[in-house]
Amino acid sequence: MVEYIDSIGTLVFAISGALTAIYKKLDLFGVFCIAFVTALGGGTLRDILIGNTPVGWMLDLKYIIIIFIGTVLSILFNIYLEKLRISLFLFDTIGFGVFTLIGIEKGIEKELHPIICIALGTLTATFGGVIRDILCNEIPVLFRKEIYATLSILGGVLFFVLLSCKLDMDLIYLLSSLFIIAARILCFKMNWSLPTGSAFVKK
Amino acid sequence: MVEYIDSIGTLVFAISGALTAIYKKLDLFGVFCIAFVTALGGGTLRDILIGNTPVGWMLDLKYIIIIFIGTVLSILFNIYLEKLRISLFLFDTIGFGVFTLIGIEKGIEKELHPIICIALGTLTATFGGVIRDILCNEIPVLFRKEIYATLSILGGVLFFVLLSCKLDMDLIYLLSSLFIIAARILCFKMNWSLPTGSAFVKK
Amino acid sequence: MVEYIDSIGTLVFAISGALTAIYKKLDLFGVFCIAFVTALGGGTLRDILIGNTPVGWMLDLKYIIIIFIGTVLSILFNIYLEKLRISLFLFDTIGFGVFTLIGIEKGIEKELHPIICIALGTLTATFGGVIRDILCNEIPVLFRKEIYATLSILGGVLFFVLLSCKLDMDLIYLLSSLFIIAARILCFKMNWSLPTGSAFVKK
Repeated sequence: MVEYIDSIGTLVFAISGALTAIYKKLDLFGVFCIAFVTALGGGTLRDILIGNTPVGWMLDLKYIIIIFIGTVLSILFNIYLEKLRISLFLFDTIGFGVFTLIGIEKGIEKELHPIICIALGTLTATFGGVIRDILCNEIPVLFRKEIYATLSILGGVLFFVLLSCKLDMDLIYLLSSLFIIAARILCFKMNWSLPTGSAFVKK
Repeated sequence: MVEYIDSIGTLVFAISGALTAIYKKLDLFGVFCIAFVTALGGGTLRDILIGNTPVGWMLDLKYIIIIFIGTVLSILFNIYLEKLRISLFLFDTIGFGVFTLIGIEKGIEKELHPIICIALGTLTATFGGVIRDILCNEIPVLFRKEIYATLSILGGVLFFVLLSCKLDMDLIYLLSSLFIIAARILCFKMNWSLPTGSAFVKK
Repeated sequence: MVEYIDSIGTLVFAISGALTAIYKKLDLFGVFCIAFVTALGGGTLRDILIGNTPVGWMLDLKYIIIIFIGTVLSILFNIYLEKLRISLFLFDTIGFGVFTLIGIEKGIEKELHPIICIALGTLTATFGGVIRDILCNEIPVLFRKEIYATLSILGGVLFFVLLSCKLDMDLIYLLSSLFIIAARILCFKMNWSLPTGSAFVKK
């Protein structure tokens, strides 16, 4: 099931990247590139850092095909997709939750410390979006991302708490991803953000 | 012969990077650094992604020496090189074609799928220039690059088509690189570019 | 002893990054991230390039803990730390010298050529600061860095000269790091910089 949601996550992240690139008036190849780095940038950096090379998407063409489909869909239907922005946000959030857990899983496979695994999960979920923003010159999104990153970390902590309770693995995956997804929707609705570092400065 | 053209490609890419850095008024060390990333950035990213570590230029001092020579030449003769801009474009284009084929070759060595090999070839040929542009804050060049990237992909496709025809390897290398070089010169002369993703949007 | 100074270097680089992020009004998570990449960015890139994966900080939690402490200290005491700017510069310079030698050591372990080892040392010492500046949009610091990078290279050359004299290893480490530290303080005091590449152009 994770396998299946992984594909959905990749598709929606690709669409999110492609839409951003289309609005920035990049050419066709540029749109595909931004879709690619948005969907696979996080996982690629994770694989490089832990030494999983050749990196994942080189060994399974599925990813490139999904991103290609996402790019074509975005170019053909970007006006309609715009109207579906809320459903897109939902898919994007599902991808966000699943990518966090996939990153954690890869860290556990390499027998790394839980804290490092959580960092890898957060990296997998957020880094693609960070690259997309850098390449498209969109600064403000970074700030929004940072509360999301915190949610990804909290979801990772929940994952290891549940793991130490020796619950069933499928249940652990379900609960932690549901937590991340629900929390992110809540933050979005309530427009919550983290305090800035300078909030603690006495004026 | 590929070995020999590899060195020419490195030299010309280094000169192209160094000239850009000189116009941006970077200091001597900065000029060398930009020359370095322009010439070796693409190959380095490729080696990291496929797990070829330590990366290529660490195991053969030839590359650093060539880049050093390219930097010194650029600093001493940058006014004359400017007048040679057309010959430089030609060399740069030769490097572009050869770097594409070197990237494809590395992918085949790792037994990766042809589509991934083509992606590696394009990456090797274009990524150095992308880093150069990011570091030097030159945005417009990215767009020009993207049609070039497409040519690199087409050249890669031609490579595998010829390969499936079981032609002689030297001939395959020669034909695919000549195709990329000729196509790039043609695009430059005709001032061709790819349509933007938003060209398909109904207003 | 190197182990011990390594920790001090990490702490001070983290504080330097955190302070920059606080002034840029990033949120708490952003401050931690900038502290992290400033302290570990150079070593991470070095480990990726030479194939030391999973990269160093994933195998020893010490680094994350130190950076966390540095971030908390910076947030709580950033006004007082500001007054300590000179002591911070001193610590930062010590870190700079030590990180150079750690990078060289890693290259020697991989049996790379001395020139490559020196490049790895310089990368380890400077790349964290370069990422910090890119992420925080602080361009001018890059130029100042470049004379520092040159000092790191000179220190690396001194290291291998002393090594070829078959001096005691501890003495070699001490002398080369003292050289880098003293030279950097001198350059800072005298406000020295490298000539630009265009200085050699005849007008």
